[in-house]
Amino acid sequence: MRGQETEPVPDVVVSRLPLYLRTLTFLAEEGAEIVSSAKLAGRLGLSPAQIRKDLSHFGEFGKQGSGYQVAYLRQKLQEILHLTRTWDVALVGAGDLGHALAHYGGFIDRGFRISLVFDNNPQKIGREVGGLTVLSTELMKAELRRRQIRVAIIAVPAAAAQKVADELVDAGVSAILNYAPITLNVPAGVNVQYMDPVVHLQHMTYYLEPPAQ
Amino acid sequence: MRGQETEPVPDVVVSRLPLYLRTLTFLAEEGAEIVSSAKLAGRLGLSPAQIRKDLSHFGEFGKQGSGYQVAYLRQKLQEILHLTRTWDVALVGAGDLGHALAHYGGFIDRGFRISLVFDNNPQKIGREVGGLTVLSTELMKAELRRRQIRVAIIAVPAAAAQKVADELVDAGVSAILNYAPITLNVPAGVNVQYMDPVVHLQHMTYYLEPPAQ
Repeated sequence: MRGQETEPVPDVVVSRLPLYLRTLTFLAEEGAEIVSSAKLAGRLGLSPAQIRKDLSHFGEFGKQGSGYQVAYLRQKLQEILHLTRTWDVALVGAGDLGHALAHYGGFIDRGFRISLVFDNNPQKIGREVGGLTVLSTELMKAELRRRQIRVAIIAVPAAAAQKVADELVDAGVSAILNYAPITLNVPAGVNVQYMDPVVHLQHMTYYLEPPAQ
Repeated sequence: MRGQETEPVPDVVVSRLPLYLRTLTFLAEEGAEIVSSAKLAGRLGLSPAQIRKDLSHFGEFGKQGSGYQVAYLRQKLQEILHLTRTWDVALVGAGDLGHALAHYGGFIDRGFRISLVFDNNPQKIGREVGGLTVLSTELMKAELRRRQIRVAIIAVPAAAAQKVADELVDAGVSAILNYAPITLNVPAGVNVQYMDPVVHLQHMTYYLEPPAQ
């Protein structure tokens, strides 16, 4: 799909595709077979024009006036985002957050599977988390290379996160989801996304009137 | 600040303000006093023009060619986002994720404090999490109203999340950060933000070439 354009698709457009996919999945579960760009837009808080423009980067997905076929568009988005396979994911950090992620039910049917869990705490190494045995971070580089893991989640304290990121990159990981509240320095070609609850809370307090203290 | 315009600021602009604030905080910690829109843009992966346009909704924050004063712009963003006070936050769910959130160090100096923790599991009620005693969700409505809590985090399983959201809204909460992997139905005027790790992973796999399986 990406070969249709010489210009790369803007990252902000790419960032919206998973939201489209998530909404189409909900619509499919609700039994919808066709969805108008207006309805899709309403569910996403975007304009119909924005959705049509975003999707136009990747081809023609709907006839004017007849809406999108939910199953077809969903399949195409999965192809564009490389989700027709399951990605093995390394999870670094087996604390509370690591446990929550290892037990998170939302990965497997959306293209991901936590396949390895690492920690540097001798009390955690060897224990089972979400059906996986926690491995020492000393084994991380070799294991990630052996299994060609490209995707990792950092769920360690802020003070340890940069060192973990360096090791992940060194082992060939090029997509990192970071839960630690710091900005990571990574080389060009490595993608980092941040899970920062405060950014979302601050977005919402804009709309709140502060009560009297 | 918001009174300067009759048109509401687009939500997509509001959504970027916490990212500006976070980056300015990093810059301040690095000792920067002035930052150019080009440098700020580089750190954020946006264009300088976008940043100037976003900020222009709220007033004049930099002289042409001289950059932004980091401390001043930071202060102004905190005012715009209503962060010059600390918001009490109710956390619903005292499982692994709830524990991780209760111990998360990134809230307090960014405008939020988890003040109440609820769970419906008798084995969790009365136990201490992050210095707070877990309360029964049966007390939730009364406690939230009494303390005028407006902001809540849902960290319960997907099957329980809608019921919790209904109760939060009924108790006067109008900003919900939802970690459960479902879309919540809430009335107009209630804001929901989603913490969905898969959306971020899918964004990154767009850029990955699938290895041979």
